[in-house]
Amino acid sequence: MSRLIDELRKLPGVGAKTAQRFAFYILRSPECDAEALSNAIRALKAQLRLCSVCNNVTDVDPCIYCSSPTRSHRTVCVVSEPTDIAAVEKTRSYNGVFHVLHGTLSPLNGIGPDQLRTSNLLNRLSDLDEIILALSPTVEGEATSHYLATELHHASADHPLRVTRIATGIPAGADIEYADEVTMSRAMDGRREV
Amino acid sequence: MSRLIDELRKLPGVGAKTAQRFAFYILRSPECDAEALSNAIRALKAQLRLCSVCNNVTDVDPCIYCSSPTRSHRTVCVVSEPTDIAAVEKTRSYNGVFHVLHGTLSPLNGIGPDQLRTSNLLNRLSDLDEIILALSPTVEGEATSHYLATELHHASADHPLRVTRIATGIPAGADIEYADEVTMSRAMDGRREV
Repeated sequence: MSRLIDELRKLPGVGAKTAQRFAFYILRSPECDAEALSNAIRALKAQLRLCSVCNNVTDVDPCIYCSSPTRSHRTVCVVSEPTDIAAVEKTRSYNGVFHVLHGTLSPLNGIGPDQLRTSNLLNRLSDLDEIILALSPTVEGEATSHYLATELHHASADHPLRVTRIATGIPAGADIEYADEVTMSRAMDGRREV
Repeated sequence: MSRLIDELRKLPGVGAKTAQRFAFYILRSPECDAEALSNAIRALKAQLRLCSVCNNVTDVDPCIYCSSPTRSHRTVCVVSEPTDIAAVEKTRSYNGVFHVLHGTLSPLNGIGPDQLRTSNLLNRLSDLDEIILALSPTVEGEATSHYLATELHHASADHPLRVTRIATGIPAGADIEYADEVTMSRAMDGRREV
């Protein structure tokens, strides 16, 4: 029992009390439920892997995006983490594929260019029309975008490849009166014809 | 005394208690201070007016922006309220002039196109190269931007006038994982070459 509690406590946001509640719940539940949970956890690690094309977490290789016949495979949206794919997908307006870096440049945390998973992206540049850098406008995201833009332009010197970045600006529904100066400055720089 | 308290209570965020504290403070302060406050309030209303060129609140007409020799008078940034000028000015990167609408379209509050101060903008279109709509990406701001874009294109049909809008997107420093779908969608639409 205490071994299970110790293991459950490692989950994010779960303390001793919650772990104990989980453990007692599992104890009281039918054996088949406990077995199913145990198997699901084992299966997760056994079956999930990274897509060989885009590095997304997947149970089939290539992943559902990379193997979709209805998506455009000539536009790639580069994101930092697999969870960021959901942020782009919920717009319901993007129809290209993805590429997951599994991190952003952060020298203090030991993440340099070599730790980013970029090689399988650089290898397929000749099949692409546009790469959209959808990295957060944080310090790490900015640094990574600059680094990738340089690399991509360098690697695609012989054919036309559009490299774009998602817009930094005032979030929808917000008031410009309360915008910080960096955001406001970027919103002015990024103005578009209407 | 109670007349002063009643008047002070009309200030935003000031209730009976605070108004009383203000009144007693004025009562205890030297006569010259009370006189100065009284005169400052009277002078404010007597001296402040709207700039005849841009509708900004000013004590000289035209205002400091409209009369500045170092600013470009061929680019106009349209804002909703005089306080929004500060939001644009703190970017330190804008060198044009302004135009204040004194409101945004809001039919429910009785603000239609006729309530917006646009006539002195429409009258000087032939002297302008670009109009930047710096309205908040709220429902009212969006409606006002659409209305103005249409009006401006219509009124400037005979000469080339750029009409642009500031970018909606992820605010600087924010994580795309937490972006709402409208903002994310706009950030994707507004992507720029890097």
